[in-house]
Amino acid sequence: MARIAVVAGDGIGPEVVAQARKVLDAVLPGVQATEYDLGAARWHRTGEVLPDSVLTELAGHDAILLGAVGDPTVPPGVLERGLLLKLRFAFDQYVNLRPSRLWPGVAGPLGNVKPGEVDLVVVREGTEGLYAGAGGSLHRDTPAEVATEESLNTRHGVERVIRDAFVRAGRRERRKVTLVHKTNVLTHAGSLWARAFDAVAAEHPDVATEYQHVDAAAMFLVTQPQRYDVVVTDNLFGDILTDIAAAVTGGIGLAASGCINPEGAYPSMFEPVHGSAPDIAGQGVADPVAAVLSAALLLEQLGHAEAAARVNAAVAAELAGRIPGVALRTAEVGDRLAAHAVA
Amino acid sequence: MARIAVVAGDGIGPEVVAQARKVLDAVLPGVQATEYDLGAARWHRTGEVLPDSVLTELAGHDAILLGAVGDPTVPPGVLERGLLLKLRFAFDQYVNLRPSRLWPGVAGPLGNVKPGEVDLVVVREGTEGLYAGAGGSLHRDTPAEVATEESLNTRHGVERVIRDAFVRAGRRERRKVTLVHKTNVLTHAGSLWARAFDAVAAEHPDVATEYQHVDAAAMFLVTQPQRYDVVVTDNLFGDILTDIAAAVTGGIGLAASGCINPEGAYPSMFEPVHGSAPDIAGQGVADPVAAVLSAALLLEQLGHAEAAARVNAAVAAELAGRIPGVALRTAEVGDRLAAHAVA
Ligand SMILES: CC(C)[C@H](C(=O)O)[C@@H](O)C(=O)O
Ligand SMILES: CC(C)[C@H](C(=O)O)[C@@H](O)C(=O)O
Repeated sequence: MARIAVVAGDGIGPEVVAQARKVLDAVLPGVQATEYDLGAARWHRTGEVLPDSVLTELAGHDAILLGAVGDPTVPPGVLERGLLLKLRFAFDQYVNLRPSRLWPGVAGPLGNVKPGEVDLVVVREGTEGLYAGAGGSLHRDTPAEVATEESLNTRHGVERVIRDAFVRAGRRERRKVTLVHKTNVLTHAGSLWARAFDAVAAEHPDVATEYQHVDAAAMFLVTQPQRYDVVVTDNLFGDILTDIAAAVTGGIGLAASGCINPEGAYPSMFEPVHGSAPDIAGQGVADPVAAVLSAALLLEQLGHAEAAARVNAAVAAELAGRIPGVALRTAEVGDRLAAHAVA
Repeated sequence: MARIAVVAGDGIGPEVVAQARKVLDAVLPGVQATEYDLGAARWHRTGEVLPDSVLTELAGHDAILLGAVGDPTVPPGVLERGLLLKLRFAFDQYVNLRPSRLWPGVAGPLGNVKPGEVDLVVVREGTEGLYAGAGGSLHRDTPAEVATEESLNTRHGVERVIRDAFVRAGRRERRKVTLVHKTNVLTHAGSLWARAFDAVAAEHPDVATEYQHVDAAAMFLVTQPQRYDVVVTDNLFGDILTDIAAAVTGGIGLAASGCINPEGAYPSMFEPVHGSAPDIAGQGVADPVAAVLSAALLLEQLGHAEAAARVNAAVAAELAGRIPGVALRTAEVGDRLAAHAVA
């Protein structure tokens, strides 16, 4: 039986995670869930971000379901570097998977894009690049201050995530992978990415390929999101592009993500792309769809493809039935999704 | 009399620059223009990118008007690092100015944003960050390859561009500056940017401020571009955000930019954001508006605010009169704009 660690977190995290668990329990009865208290609240209370003992316990689970962590009173970086990125790096979650679909029933912001037309997935590298934490500063708080941030890219790290993108593309209908980078300016890392991409592409003659600079891709995600199937890119570009992809498909209220260690050597982690949204926390009005779709990614990763498909179908029905202007209640949406997923 | 160096460049560069010159000649009779042959064509012919002698000659001008350089047969980085970025760095063009307006008459891609509602300007840092060229690789073409790119940020460089953004905001109606960075991950550079921002903000109590992470800003540029007035950000974030801003305001066919050395110690450079578009080059169908708007920025920088306003008014009239579906002819648009600007 699947053993899941649950980090509900702060703000709307607990509210949306409760719905994801409802749905998980419905489609996979008997799943064992253990709650872990991590995030801004714990940090405020105890000063702890992620004790080693907790990291060890988390490692013993099949997957982690995370709601959202953070609030504006925690200094920038504390929970990001100490918790979220710590987990991604410690558990070698090198595939940061972010699908974006414009679901029927969802009114996206783009006038000329119809529901059903956008169905893309960004495979964002998760353990390298500018997220490596390789930076520093000198002469802080003086006019001579200099601060650096270094993007570290290894052939090992780049090739494995590109390989994952090609495997995913091979299973999809359009079988196309777009590499996004900035090879004309970041020539060293860009060249490494481009050469690794070409090498992996040669092993997948059935998958079509294209390359775009990150600025062009940011633009085309707005003017022509339909053109993308699988996009593979580095950690920081992926961070930015997936928020654009979310925006054009109805907002981060619907955007799911998985931080995946494909080999299963470590647990993978699944979380909505949205944050803890303290402004609406506790009101029962947060949209749990992103959390529920993240649970579907979790099911897929653990080999329960059929259960995942049922969750996705429930979400499709939920979104298709939404009436614009009618406020949603978090728990009611969760009830409907759970009921639909087993109907 | 103003002495302008003109780099028409490749592809549609010469076509659109010809229109910008028509308009410049109309509103500022007697402007002295010298053509410089730089870009992909010259590189193919001679192997030269930017000879020192040309750099010295360019330095003797009041401003540079550039069309577009590059074509797909030039390896990535050659013209970017060797010409475009070389000029930005050599001439200390630390303010990369990119206004975006949704002009009346232009159908943007966003269903819920009306013409006239978007009027923002991105002040992108132009001489530091990941564009510094501080990177390298080891063990190239082996499984052990590692490639780095380093973002270099100085208090000097960061503070001066933030200062420029505040000065510009102080002259605008809404008087608001948004700092965009990624302080929660890029903690060293982010902290430097945030502290410099706060320090400059304290000198401008009349200007409102906000901070956004780059991923959030990328999203809000799509869902709510109306909220921005002046945005200040680093070199790479600015590259990406300005293409999104262009996309939501009708595309890079309309997007102008200035690489500015505000002190006038070196010439500033003005260029459309679009590239050389080899696919439509030579057909006389490229939209010259971005080049003409870049010429207006040039006029403004050289102190000809009234002439700049006339060019902007001509563009407004041109765009308001466009009939969707009717193909435009580059030279005719240039003729109309020149005529309107002096009418
Ligand atoms: C919170 C932050 C560290 C994180 C990131 O930058 O990866 C977030 O923006 C995301 O996209 O998951
Ligand atoms: C061509 C390239 C070097 C350039 C940049 O990245 O700055 C371009 O994208 C731009 O925005 O002017």
